[in-house]
Amino acid sequence: MSRAFNFCAGPATLPEAVLKQAQSEMLDWRGTGMSVMEMSHRSDEFVNIAETAEQDLRELAGISDDYAVLFMQGGASSQFATIPLNLLGDKTSADYVNTGIWSKKAIAEAKRYADVNVAASSEDTGFTTIPEQSVWNTRADAAYLHYTPNETIGGLEYDFIPDSGDVPLVADMSSTMLSRPVDVNKFGLIYAGAQKNIGPSGLVVVIIRKDLLGKARQQTPTMMNYQVIADNGSMYNTPATYSWYLAGLVFKWLKEQGGVQAMGEINARKARKLYDFIDGNDFYANPIDPRFRSWMNVPFTLADDALNSEFLKGADARGLLNLKGHRSVGGMRASIYNAMPEEGVDALIDYMAEFAKERG
Amino acid sequence: MSRAFNFCAGPATLPEAVLKQAQSEMLDWRGTGMSVMEMSHRSDEFVNIAETAEQDLRELAGISDDYAVLFMQGGASSQFATIPLNLLGDKTSADYVNTGIWSKKAIAEAKRYADVNVAASSEDTGFTTIPEQSVWNTRADAAYLHYTPNETIGGLEYDFIPDSGDVPLVADMSSTMLSRPVDVNKFGLIYAGAQKNIGPSGLVVVIIRKDLLGKARQQTPTMMNYQVIADNGSMYNTPATYSWYLAGLVFKWLKEQGGVQAMGEINARKARKLYDFIDGNDFYANPIDPRFRSWMNVPFTLADDALNSEFLKGADARGLLNLKGHRSVGGMRASIYNAMPEEGVDALIDYMAEFAKERG
Repeated sequence: MSRAFNFCAGPATLPEAVLKQAQSEMLDWRGTGMSVMEMSHRSDEFVNIAETAEQDLRELAGISDDYAVLFMQGGASSQFATIPLNLLGDKTSADYVNTGIWSKKAIAEAKRYADVNVAASSEDTGFTTIPEQSVWNTRADAAYLHYTPNETIGGLEYDFIPDSGDVPLVADMSSTMLSRPVDVNKFGLIYAGAQKNIGPSGLVVVIIRKDLLGKARQQTPTMMNYQVIADNGSMYNTPATYSWYLAGLVFKWLKEQGGVQAMGEINARKARKLYDFIDGNDFYANPIDPRFRSWMNVPFTLADDALNSEFLKGADARGLLNLKGHRSVGGMRASIYNAMPEEGVDALIDYMAEFAKERG
Repeated sequence: MSRAFNFCAGPATLPEAVLKQAQSEMLDWRGTGMSVMEMSHRSDEFVNIAETAEQDLRELAGISDDYAVLFMQGGASSQFATIPLNLLGDKTSADYVNTGIWSKKAIAEAKRYADVNVAASSEDTGFTTIPEQSVWNTRADAAYLHYTPNETIGGLEYDFIPDSGDVPLVADMSSTMLSRPVDVNKFGLIYAGAQKNIGPSGLVVVIIRKDLLGKARQQTPTMMNYQVIADNGSMYNTPATYSWYLAGLVFKWLKEQGGVQAMGEINARKARKLYDFIDGNDFYANPIDPRFRSWMNVPFTLADDALNSEFLKGADARGLLNLKGHRSVGGMRASIYNAMPEEGVDALIDYMAEFAKERG
């Protein structure tokens, strides 16, 4: 078929313009006679690709020189261990907020290294809301406060940035990075697996306030030591060069779209359209507290679960792909990251309306 | 320019046929309407790509069911820590053989976790030879014996597989993997960063005998725990899907070339041609003990170092790229992995002959 609308939660759809450029440069990057994936990471050409990508990311996200930007490997899941190994320093405890499956994974891994305090949890609601910060049981001696701004599986997103006082705030932005303006200066560390809003899997971007570097526990694997990675410009070993290059193409594309301000407006509109349709149609439902509905991941159920496979089959036939919900949640999920065009959301709504009319 | 002959040590040249296929499939893999890098790693399509790649690798390298094959992230440098964290078990010591810069890096990282015994070293020769195994000071209580079959920087390659008795043999095959037939059954663990003979950087292949699984130290990061990765088919988290796909294309290409038997013959011929030329020409020299000259990485010096930049400039002009030697060794280095066609070696020799005649 021609290009489909791919609602996968990650790895996720990429901008068609980015894929076309990568395609055209695949065998010969700008007259070098090589693919980017064949270049030495220490070559002038690749170093320029890498530095340009970092500069564009800094510009897009408003990252000051107080922060190091690292292009690492191993995905966000590796960061679940890397963070306590690097940030505990001479402290032993860390605060975590539990708002869904990804929070829980981060907590489970951190418990292997730290005295973890779950400062707040919405598990008793089935992760359909986010506890107000006023009831969080944070500790002043915590090495950091970790939260998950957007839960990819649950479809639950913070509409505020927690105030952590002097405690460094750490955020897993894998599924929300660059989707709207965020004040980076409120954070000690931001990390994001690339495969949702940045590029292909196999790359994880870490933005860390420089005063938090240099505190890695003695037994931290060198490849997980933020200070080492920062000192070596993310080239302590061979980085994931092709993924880094593709991320750079995505950053250029984002700038052409008007940056995160413009993306935030588009994403708000896409999400509002879809939630408005769901709320206005008895056949569909979304369980999340309206205030905390994710702009990026929209789970929804059909009035009759027995129709799920027919719904998915009809969607596939129209090129509306990967709408099946996560196995732990069931139902459907439409992930509508930056690279999902508004026409994709419109096409989905059209199909949902038609399906509800015929089968509802 | 058109496609150059790229002698980079890694990331390295890839087969043109592989890049062309990746190019043609970039926006739409086999009518799915998606790029492989946009597919869910849990989709039927990607799982099939992943399993086919593993099967082809097993067939190529002759890997039995006694071994697990893992597609991990972080490169060989991450394995330097992952290996002691997983293989020490209830032992405290490990044996390492030091034959060059990559051996030394593996040793330095292992020392952070283990009582490391350097069983043998050729450092006193400037890493120009490999000590006979009869003089190795190995220990019966070592958890494993680690060596580096091919030193990418020095251009030094074992012509034998050490006999480690009951002690598991561990090998960093990053730069020699699949370049000639090897009896995998002699090894406890083989690892290889992909960016030389397998695919793009950001992927590391680990072949581990199954009885060595399940011994990870308690504080091993979960993403470094071989048992966890094996239990989850290398999908404990989102793997580097696009790199895995490209590796699969390389494996298919290798099978079409006749597998590792055929590659071994071609590689032997390529290396012999180049070394014979170097030995037969007073203007060029290679310092390595002829018995242990690498088939993959051929360092050489010019009679007059002052001519190095002129040599490199002339090479570049002919599309013979990345011949500059590693900064720690100087001179030149031609990496002639599987994907370097024999015509590339011929073109290099022609140029070297001409340069020596004109400037020698």
